[in-house]
Amino acid sequence: MPDFDFASRIRSAQALMVEQHAEVMLLSIGADLPYLTGYQAMPLERLTMLVVGVDSEPVLVVPQLEAPRVEPGPFALRPWGETEDPLAMVAEMCRGAGDVAIGDQTWSVFLLGLQAQLPTAAFRSATPITRTLRAKKDSREIEFLHRAATGADRVSAHLAGLKFSGHTEQEISRLVTRMTLEEDHDQALFWIVASGPNSASPHHEPTDRVIEPGDLVVVDFGGKHRGYCSDTTRTFSVGEPDAQQVEVHAAVRAAQEAATAAVAPGVRAEEIDQIARRTITDAGYGEYFIHRTGHGIGLEGHEHPYLVEGNSEKLEPGMCFSIEPGIYLPDRFGVRIEDIVTVTDVGVESLNQADRALVQVG
Amino acid sequence: MPDFDFASRIRSAQALMVEQHAEVMLLSIGADLPYLTGYQAMPLERLTMLVVGVDSEPVLVVPQLEAPRVEPGPFALRPWGETEDPLAMVAEMCRGAGDVAIGDQTWSVFLLGLQAQLPTAAFRSATPITRTLRAKKDSREIEFLHRAATGADRVSAHLAGLKFSGHTEQEISRLVTRMTLEEDHDQALFWIVASGPNSASPHHEPTDRVIEPGDLVVVDFGGKHRGYCSDTTRTFSVGEPDAQQVEVHAAVRAAQEAATAAVAPGVRAEEIDQIARRTITDAGYGEYFIHRTGHGIGLEGHEHPYLVEGNSEKLEPGMCFSIEPGIYLPDRFGVRIEDIVTVTDVGVESLNQADRALVQVG
Repeated sequence: MPDFDFASRIRSAQALMVEQHAEVMLLSIGADLPYLTGYQAMPLERLTMLVVGVDSEPVLVVPQLEAPRVEPGPFALRPWGETEDPLAMVAEMCRGAGDVAIGDQTWSVFLLGLQAQLPTAAFRSATPITRTLRAKKDSREIEFLHRAATGADRVSAHLAGLKFSGHTEQEISRLVTRMTLEEDHDQALFWIVASGPNSASPHHEPTDRVIEPGDLVVVDFGGKHRGYCSDTTRTFSVGEPDAQQVEVHAAVRAAQEAATAAVAPGVRAEEIDQIARRTITDAGYGEYFIHRTGHGIGLEGHEHPYLVEGNSEKLEPGMCFSIEPGIYLPDRFGVRIEDIVTVTDVGVESLNQADRALVQVG
Repeated sequence: MPDFDFASRIRSAQALMVEQHAEVMLLSIGADLPYLTGYQAMPLERLTMLVVGVDSEPVLVVPQLEAPRVEPGPFALRPWGETEDPLAMVAEMCRGAGDVAIGDQTWSVFLLGLQAQLPTAAFRSATPITRTLRAKKDSREIEFLHRAATGADRVSAHLAGLKFSGHTEQEISRLVTRMTLEEDHDQALFWIVASGPNSASPHHEPTDRVIEPGDLVVVDFGGKHRGYCSDTTRTFSVGEPDAQQVEVHAAVRAAQEAATAAVAPGVRAEEIDQIARRTITDAGYGEYFIHRTGHGIGLEGHEHPYLVEGNSEKLEPGMCFSIEPGIYLPDRFGVRIEDIVTVTDVGVESLNQADRALVQVG
């Protein structure tokens, strides 16, 4: 985790807590905690929790055996030993608070324990506080996202020169993983390789299906560069595509381009979704575009803002998200094209630049 | 995920729900859901939730775009589209229920949403239901754990023949990851390589520290074989160990052996911890054994039963857990030895068999 100005981020969070009438904020696993402190909690049964009051130094309650992993920061450390009760510790620090905000990904078992110990406190999601900070990236965060995207683009370029035919989805996906790690990523996070009829399943898990001529292959992958995520999708044609494959790909590409071109400060998130959807509907495939157009990205692969019908929040400079329309014809084939873009002061910049054509591979 | 008798597992869970007066059980991410259905939810902002009543067919509420990933099983499928509210769907299925059990790892944001929609329901942890089933493994589960452990043992044997000196922790840890994947694992999950003073941090993350003669190196790693986890630790000496390193290692090894030998049906979990701790305390290092003696293992790397002071539950045949005492001298060095063992009808079997000596490496 690079060294950001965590003290300033914590002060901003505290100001938002006051605005939103939260007396305490509790952060455990997920990206809110590393965003504010640089420290990422392990997703384990031993509780790690940052207790943030509105005007005091935050306290990080952490398992004693993980305490040596914590880099010093603008918070106090409160390690707990194996026979202590960390929930009681946190509850004690919250005593008297009426409004408690808690991180979305905190395990339910911990929330239930805190609710039992603080029966008069009202718990609510911390996301209205943290998303305000996290959704707009600063120039350094955008630089990391850009480098992650550029590394992913190099993987896409390698894929375009690859022989797919005769290999299994799993073989290609292992290769994608290896290339992701070689191209400026510290971590590979996911590696969808969906061929032939499997490409009609947006979140398909790679199988031992052997890829063959005539297949479209959707490759959707990503990882982390210094904590910041990449996420990109390209669709390849194994040999010459047929007329409908070309038509569907053209519709997705047109939707992806139209949606990207529409991004600018002040535009509502759902408008971008509407534009992509209208383009695909006009091409006659509306019912086969079965997911939203995109999601924010940063320390997490999916975060605010979401480009989905019903989200009327306005785009602001510094927001970063995917634009990834797709068409999925059940039992036949699917196509998706995905880039990460960032909202600039005047419009949009695409962080991914790999060829968006329906590239033919062997 | 291998094909277990999910229908029978669901019936057992429903019987336990009746016994424990839970009217509905809600399972999302974590291992309870795949244990009962073979399906693992993605840890994302789109809700996946199995709704289990006491005498009806369970319903799996799943994002529409993930529905094609679900293998048919003894449950109904209820996909939800991007503009639908999955929490409202689940709440509707729970309407009228007073007692609702919810999986421990479910995101808090979903629990808060359900509590708001079901203000009269009392929520509690589902673990008292699911742990009863999951803690005692059947012969096929033990076979998978055994194969995972045997693969991990081969990695330990490779490590014993390796030159550590001159390599960084990260280099060794990448090698451990690669070897884990080559030795009967579908997934590598973690790869602690802690050298010299870093070995005094039990959950150390590998750094670019160059390993040198005189170091002890704690290597703690694991992965998954067909969904079941491995987890083993060996400590290596780079060159000749000094007298205190030998003494500390001998104390840990004696504790590990004594604790293992004490495992049998009917023994309390905390007794195993006490035996390991007493051995280390008698050797003069009690204050440096800063974690519990072990944790259950199965579909998750850490699960019930925990071998920790205060856990008076009795061991039963089929339970599988780690035995992993350690001594950590701050800023100097640490030692840990960890095996997975299973409780048999009469005593104990260690699933790991790699050499437990303080092996000298180059």
